[in-house]
Amino acid sequence: MSKKAMVYIQSGGPTSVINTSLYGAIREGQKHPEISKIYGSLNGIDGLLNDNLIDLGAEDDETIELFKQTPGAVLGTTRHKLPKDLHHEEYSRIIETLKKHDIGYVFVNGGNDSMDTCYKLSLLAKELNLDIKVMGVPKTVDNDLAETDHSNGFGSAAKYVINTIREIIADAQSYKNYKAYIIEIMGRNAGWLTAAVDLLPEEARPDLIYLPENKFDVEKFVANVDKIYAKKGNCIVAISEGIEFERDESNVKIDSFGHKQLGGAASDLGKLITSRLGIAVRAIELSLPQRAYSFLTSKVDSDEACICGAEAVRHAVEGMTGHMIAIKRVSDKPYAVKYEPVDISKIANVERKVPISMMKDDSHMDPSFRAYCEPLIQGELAVTMENGIIKTAVLKKVRV
Amino acid sequence: MSKKAMVYIQSGGPTSVINTSLYGAIREGQKHPEISKIYGSLNGIDGLLNDNLIDLGAEDDETIELFKQTPGAVLGTTRHKLPKDLHHEEYSRIIETLKKHDIGYVFVNGGNDSMDTCYKLSLLAKELNLDIKVMGVPKTVDNDLAETDHSNGFGSAAKYVINTIREIIADAQSYKNYKAYIIEIMGRNAGWLTAAVDLLPEEARPDLIYLPENKFDVEKFVANVDKIYAKKGNCIVAISEGIEFERDESNVKIDSFGHKQLGGAASDLGKLITSRLGIAVRAIELSLPQRAYSFLTSKVDSDEACICGAEAVRHAVEGMTGHMIAIKRVSDKPYAVKYEPVDISKIANVERKVPISMMKDDSHMDPSFRAYCEPLIQGELAVTMENGIIKTAVLKKVRV
Repeated sequence: MSKKAMVYIQSGGPTSVINTSLYGAIREGQKHPEISKIYGSLNGIDGLLNDNLIDLGAEDDETIELFKQTPGAVLGTTRHKLPKDLHHEEYSRIIETLKKHDIGYVFVNGGNDSMDTCYKLSLLAKELNLDIKVMGVPKTVDNDLAETDHSNGFGSAAKYVINTIREIIADAQSYKNYKAYIIEIMGRNAGWLTAAVDLLPEEARPDLIYLPENKFDVEKFVANVDKIYAKKGNCIVAISEGIEFERDESNVKIDSFGHKQLGGAASDLGKLITSRLGIAVRAIELSLPQRAYSFLTSKVDSDEACICGAEAVRHAVEGMTGHMIAIKRVSDKPYAVKYEPVDISKIANVERKVPISMMKDDSHMDPSFRAYCEPLIQGELAVTMENGIIKTAVLKKVRV
Repeated sequence: MSKKAMVYIQSGGPTSVINTSLYGAIREGQKHPEISKIYGSLNGIDGLLNDNLIDLGAEDDETIELFKQTPGAVLGTTRHKLPKDLHHEEYSRIIETLKKHDIGYVFVNGGNDSMDTCYKLSLLAKELNLDIKVMGVPKTVDNDLAETDHSNGFGSAAKYVINTIREIIADAQSYKNYKAYIIEIMGRNAGWLTAAVDLLPEEARPDLIYLPENKFDVEKFVANVDKIYAKKGNCIVAISEGIEFERDESNVKIDSFGHKQLGGAASDLGKLITSRLGIAVRAIELSLPQRAYSFLTSKVDSDEACICGAEAVRHAVEGMTGHMIAIKRVSDKPYAVKYEPVDISKIANVERKVPISMMKDDSHMDPSFRAYCEPLIQGELAVTMENGIIKTAVLKKVRV
């Protein structure tokens, strides 16, 4: 039996369970004698490009246990996109690092952009006939990865969004003051996270819900706010950051994957409502905390993230490459899933949007959405605190 | 023994423990045969002005237990300020309601503006020789009430701010991307909440901390960001919403107490940094969730809020009026407090700011601040969830 090292890559935005998948992969890796060493690539693919790897075997057991509640991406992440041409010098640098450390297993944990990285690495290994297995682990709060029922990270982010908006609505309902609230939720092209607010009880839910999957009609929006406000004396609106309308382009930036970096939509729409209807508006951007909050991690999401990390390692050791571990739902009630590797070429760069069948109108999702989403936010993860502050893993980061 | 009803008023912004003080007051009220009925005034003083009271005795025991984890202000609140002239018709309406329901005890839970309401009601009772005891219960996340070591609600808000910024910093540290982060925290004139971030460990804390107590020097701020960014490749700044600098006045609104409603400072400073230094900035407003989040309630804060509510009732039944229950610290280590009524005239409309002795420089507080603040964020409150969503009290609100 030839022994080879494995390297784990975290890519794209952090989620509440990004480090839980890493935890699962490490624990699985430790079980297999085929794996000689367990390395972490610092800052995503940058670690392979620049030979910045750490020995995860050098970390204390307690540190690794804490991964399950540590915010951020403990290895660091990146949004770097690999070039199309497999003969590009970047690939030579990656191969050099892989060979130098005798790496036979590469794991990429990320969303659809990161699965592109995963795909290219698997093509590279194939083209050069390298004995390197490359496997993907799903991760994105946007929940837009194809070929999987849902993605690790989504359930926890949804749970955060739902409960935080519950708090905001309770705050808003405490006043007789007449005001509208526009709450902006992450979701560039897919509105899964925004749709999740539909799970709130009728007496404490947004009045209006706008996903990027539907064409956003500004006139209809203004009319809806006007009508609800006239009736209730307030109006609470949940919007995806990615809904499109004519706006101040100075707020929009482009990231290195070529995507617009959004934000500011609630503020822009708030100004519009105030100028058109004369209503005071509080614009609230849920911002960074929504994607990786440790205090509202879904237990279901956490458990699944751990299993996906482990399954990727198990399949790689058995010889599989070029696949991502997908979650396939077996049933809604009782909730049950199985884990199946899916060809990565079907996933890279593909976006899975909320299907029209799950939408109803500007205020509600179809009941099928609740059946889909509700199981994903179940269960709480106990968080260890120290002096009132979350206890987090502090890595030694021993370079190899 | 003459029996009289009590009425409880929630006033000003919600906190994580605003309903916990109400809980304490109800439980104490139930112990005293002198109290015939326990009423809640809907939407603060508005309930007395418009005879909108509910019978809290009609609520289920389970509902009242849930007050301790229910977000928002369960009775509703207001920012209405009573007129100076005690002969104003508003007072006639209040007296009418008090007499109609045979009310002998009035409790006002709020901050320094609300203690003005409390003060005026106590003066009114005295001037008209009414047998009505009026007592204050401290409450403000701003922690700016005079004559008390700290205010109910501050510890939990501080705990939220500290832990949420810990999350944001972990997210920021996951990237090599060069960026500055400006995080805006509540605090109109007092920077207690912003100062709380000083409790974070050195490796995961904001680089710069700006309180409204210090004159904000824009040039020094820009120079500081420039220096830190050049050294670290990023810069994380925590600011109080109330810091003053020349800014877009179109963002500023005035509330009914005559205070500026703030917000947007981080965004304005971000634009300044980008234009002056060419650095990408992510502006994050912690916004409404910071003041009343149920998931990071400090156990110390919760317990104290409950006791303050109860103590106000106990003293009123013993004949006291015109006082607020103040928390007096006996020692830092071990943390110990006692509860003492303080003449409300010393508290109404007075703002207690962070003392200069607790400040050090633009990056750190004096160690005396940690000794002061750390005990207030200790302990966690277990939250009951239902299907992944916080379980909250739903009141019957039986009108009387």
